[in-house]
Amino acid sequence: MNAGHHDAAWRHPDARPGGVIDPAHFIDLARTAERGHFDSLFLADGLALLGDARWNTVGGFEPLTLLAALSAVTERIGLIATVSTTFHEPYTVARAFASLDHLSAGRAGWNIVTSGNPAESRNFGYASHPEHARRYARADEFLEVVRKLWDSWEDDAIVLDRRAGRWTAEGSVRPIDHHGEHFRVAGPLNVPRPPQGHPLLVQAGSSRDGREFAARHAEAVFTAQQTLGDALAFARDLRSRLARHGRPADALRILPGLCPILGSTEAEARALEEELTALQIPEYGLAQLSGMLGTDLTGLPLDGPLPPLPDERRINGNKSRFELVAELVRRENPTIREVIARLGGGRGHRVVAGTPEGIADTIEEWFRAGAADGFNIMPPILPTGLADFVDHVVPILVRRGLFRADYGSRTLRGHYGLPRPAGRRHGDRREDQAAAASGAGPAVLPTGVGG
Amino acid sequence: MNAGHHDAAWRHPDARPGGVIDPAHFIDLARTAERGHFDSLFLADGLALLGDARWNTVGGFEPLTLLAALSAVTERIGLIATVSTTFHEPYTVARAFASLDHLSAGRAGWNIVTSGNPAESRNFGYASHPEHARRYARADEFLEVVRKLWDSWEDDAIVLDRRAGRWTAEGSVRPIDHHGEHFRVAGPLNVPRPPQGHPLLVQAGSSRDGREFAARHAEAVFTAQQTLGDALAFARDLRSRLARHGRPADALRILPGLCPILGSTEAEARALEEELTALQIPEYGLAQLSGMLGTDLTGLPLDGPLPPLPDERRINGNKSRFELVAELVRRENPTIREVIARLGGGRGHRVVAGTPEGIADTIEEWFRAGAADGFNIMPPILPTGLADFVDHVVPILVRRGLFRADYGSRTLRGHYGLPRPAGRRHGDRREDQAAAASGAGPAVLPTGVGG
Repeated sequence: MNAGHHDAAWRHPDARPGGVIDPAHFIDLARTAERGHFDSLFLADGLALLGDARWNTVGGFEPLTLLAALSAVTERIGLIATVSTTFHEPYTVARAFASLDHLSAGRAGWNIVTSGNPAESRNFGYASHPEHARRYARADEFLEVVRKLWDSWEDDAIVLDRRAGRWTAEGSVRPIDHHGEHFRVAGPLNVPRPPQGHPLLVQAGSSRDGREFAARHAEAVFTAQQTLGDALAFARDLRSRLARHGRPADALRILPGLCPILGSTEAEARALEEELTALQIPEYGLAQLSGMLGTDLTGLPLDGPLPPLPDERRINGNKSRFELVAELVRRENPTIREVIARLGGGRGHRVVAGTPEGIADTIEEWFRAGAADGFNIMPPILPTGLADFVDHVVPILVRRGLFRADYGSRTLRGHYGLPRPAGRRHGDRREDQAAAASGAGPAVLPTGVGG
Repeated sequence: MNAGHHDAAWRHPDARPGGVIDPAHFIDLARTAERGHFDSLFLADGLALLGDARWNTVGGFEPLTLLAALSAVTERIGLIATVSTTFHEPYTVARAFASLDHLSAGRAGWNIVTSGNPAESRNFGYASHPEHARRYARADEFLEVVRKLWDSWEDDAIVLDRRAGRWTAEGSVRPIDHHGEHFRVAGPLNVPRPPQGHPLLVQAGSSRDGREFAARHAEAVFTAQQTLGDALAFARDLRSRLARHGRPADALRILPGLCPILGSTEAEARALEEELTALQIPEYGLAQLSGMLGTDLTGLPLDGPLPPLPDERRINGNKSRFELVAELVRRENPTIREVIARLGGGRGHRVVAGTPEGIADTIEEWFRAGAADGFNIMPPILPTGLADFVDHVVPILVRRGLFRADYGSRTLRGHYGLPRPAGRRHGDRREDQAAAASGAGPAVLPTGVGG
């Protein structure tokens, strides 16, 4: 999140760029989001310094420690951390999220990603980067192990019988003895079962492998969609995959990113957008675009066209982001400078400049069309863009009956209207119980997003 | 820490055993310790469920997330987390501690350990456990990489020049390109240099390998010492090793553990000690002792002697704890029951039952003799044992001029009177600057200890 989701935000006078490494900045954002009854605060992540430190506010907090700190100064808002399955161990990750879920009394979520950047590999001893499909195979087994570890304690394992000297009931804490292709893990976990049973499982990659992973495991999907048509096609595809895995359509929330550039008039909003575009650093935009496209654009004229792009199959990083930009180029045939401007707000996520009513209209349109169960709100400038959304857009959504006027639940699963996974005690199955959530209301779900 | 450092504490009515997984318990402890102007709160750790869940309060928070949460609700107290070098990656660990140091504005410390328990290996894919010397060789290089990563950003790298579009100064954030025997790490870290330069480096193993590691790297050493003679011999040995590595004697603080069983009279203190002994669960004590001695004691008569012990060289786990128990057996020839009672308070750390004046006397005696620069206070029962120490022992130490009446510094290094390591900008050397600490006062350093 840092200074805002527009890549030039930090140069704008309303931004607080030093906040990238100041806990007070994030405490302020979390409290503002909680004041707006957001479901969650979401932190993106990478395991390397991604982006050029000269030109943008890169570098900052590690998500799990930051969200743990925020858990102590918030009451209701969900806390979603991105953690990769590529260079970590399942025991460590299961443990950290179980700990965060206990610290926050059931507000933790895990955005499960694979690490797609060669710079990340080089920080973990690898000369070349693990291949896309292989990363997802590892992620599948990783998640299997993590779930087993969360379930290695029964929900009511702790009996705390001082007189008899019994801390847990006999047999209620058991090894998992996992022996798989990628992992051998004995267990049990050294943390009691999380308050939510399992922290909420989120997924954010929209490639074919990513969609399949989401259809098998995820309960919420963050996705970048530029048009209503694309978003509808994505939602249809994902729901059909979900059905093929025997999961009901409401087992998963689809949350496209939305970067709202707000003004009290249309003209004011457009002026802010232009102000931000004018603050963009072309070298930075070119380097970012080169990374997204797997194509070195250095030295090309900004007002000329893009060169021919490689085939999607040759991309081993973020395949869905590549596809999004390639589609944009096919559709609009823009200059390089125009692409950089388009991607400035939210790096490929949808940017809408408008009045609070106009932003509420587009949210309502996508929601009613079935393209979104909610939105991942990515304010262009922080903290002002978040406060503006909470103060001016949220009340409109509440008036229209599209969003809650207060929290009706205490856990992240509760906010999303998702059930708590049953533990081992109830028959060793991983079926869902009836939804424990109450007051989840229509699933318009503004959340912050990291970066 | 959990319910207290006596292994039967959780059965005592003053304990709060459910606190093991309740953030409010730890917030209360941290605030009490801060009220007493303690240097730090220290959390021990293991990467498996160590100890039998049936008989004691095992399982709880992961230390980094718990301390991150406490950073948001405390102002001055240092936050020391135990993290192993055996099953983690240096990039991940460097990043987490840098993040905690920023979150706490310079209050983070890292207790650097190697994982010595076969149960830990089995959670990370290993059939057999890495050998003791090999673990320390890995730890050496691990620490080298972590320091390089912390130094990969210059202290003043962030220039935040909005007008020129400059976030960091050219060349102030650089790769480390480490290629060693155990690790290849490109860097730079994705967190700016920590406020303390490096979070405080702590070490807690007292074996020969552990002492050598401490002499090379550590700035504080936690150690279990049963007698003044042993503690003096340990301190002399460690200081001579320090000198051999060209480090001054005051580069390192020696902090023996102390479990104070307090009473308003000697008789009251002894009665509390006996009450706790009576609450011990023999099966639990026997299992713990079997682990410490690498010898299965199951089924042996509690009122008989210990069997012959293996040679120290055959121990691959915690060698120094083995040696401490073996020495105790040589010295006192106790029954198994007596050993279990002796180890109940603090698992091998020194237990002293007495009045506040008596406890202050033994602290002063060890400090003046040069056996301790401070103490790691391990209250037998929490939260009461900590509050009693803060309310009744600390004021005596303050009156005697042995301990601060208020914090005189804001960072953990400041509390310990240790210098801030210079960054790369100042000549690429890792020499210490003049001590930045003020008001550190005599180095009697009560701290909480984990478990």
